[in-house]
Amino acid sequence: MAIYPESLSNLIEQFQKLPTIGKKSAQRLAMSIVFRDEKSVKEFADALIDVKEKIKYCEICGNITEDNLCDICKDITRNEDCLCVVEDINDLIAIEKSGAFHGKYHVLGGLISPSDGIGPEELNIDKLLKRITDENIKEIILAISSTIEGETTSIFLSNLLAEKNVRLSKIAQGIPVGSNLEYFDQLTLERAIEDRREVND
Amino acid sequence: MAIYPESLSNLIEQFQKLPTIGKKSAQRLAMSIVFRDEKSVKEFADALIDVKEKIKYCEICGNITEDNLCDICKDITRNEDCLCVVEDINDLIAIEKSGAFHGKYHVLGGLISPSDGIGPEELNIDKLLKRITDENIKEIILAISSTIEGETTSIFLSNLLAEKNVRLSKIAQGIPVGSNLEYFDQLTLERAIEDRREVND
Repeated sequence: MAIYPESLSNLIEQFQKLPTIGKKSAQRLAMSIVFRDEKSVKEFADALIDVKEKIKYCEICGNITEDNLCDICKDITRNEDCLCVVEDINDLIAIEKSGAFHGKYHVLGGLISPSDGIGPEELNIDKLLKRITDENIKEIILAISSTIEGETTSIFLSNLLAEKNVRLSKIAQGIPVGSNLEYFDQLTLERAIEDRREVND
Repeated sequence: MAIYPESLSNLIEQFQKLPTIGKKSAQRLAMSIVFRDEKSVKEFADALIDVKEKIKYCEICGNITEDNLCDICKDITRNEDCLCVVEDINDLIAIEKSGAFHGKYHVLGGLISPSDGIGPEELNIDKLLKRITDENIKEIILAISSTIEGETTSIFLSNLLAEKNVRLSKIAQGIPVGSNLEYFDQLTLERAIEDRREVND
């Protein structure tokens, strides 16, 4: 005999499709829906549908938006000639939340990963080259994770952009703020020492 | 400027209403919806609505069901004269999953908690008394958590049921299976020793 009624068992399966939600969490979340009032569950269901209906990708940078262009591309107060190149929208949002960057973005939509069959042609690179010319971009910051795929992509882009007339940099590698350096690997420490900054009081 | 488009920001709020889902998790879950195909998101939304439309409470025991009576109450192979009294449906499901009980259940719908303004009259106790007579119940097992509210409720029910002609027991307190006893408090160890069982090889 099934422990859960069919509709509830189906909802548990649906919750399990979400990232980081295992079986036990899915059961707890689905059960919480049983105890919620109908109106609030309807609002949740509508919010899901709404996101799928309204969210699309910015025609210029690939960020998410409800219009053709995203709020960042439309923002005339931002630095127009500096592009920050990121792997995906999650990384864009992380940088945006930091408040440390005031230019525009370009979302690659992935990283080069030969083992997963993802080559440069799968990424949003042609449009990046076109933007450099069309928008008269003077500086590009590669804000790409320091993984094997990230490094491969950074090297590929560095070679590709070397012949363009742009200032090219990548975000610093080192010890995260507030971290104890004894926990970091040799390579991270090596980079942190190599990229050391002079202290100006 | 808002970092998330309005519909996405609304969905993040909706995810945050779920138990154990904080702001960061809600952002990650909502973002995963953006990347899912429309059909699968529709299925998720439908599953939410479906649960609210179909799930109701068993007229006899208070378990969840899609009919008037739950599968357990309808099951004629189960022991009819033994009731297991539980706080809520989550506890019922936990016991049912263990496969250790083959009788029927009675869901109280809460525990006595004077500080939260919950007295015995707020709980599903009248129906329990009626069932004992109507269904000719011979044994009652109190499977109630060992918290202050749980103990209060157990004592109240024990007193109430003392005059009824039923065998009354409560589930054992002791050291969970697979646990190291050094980590448990004095009271748990005291109960575990008091309730010791003779070893029969």
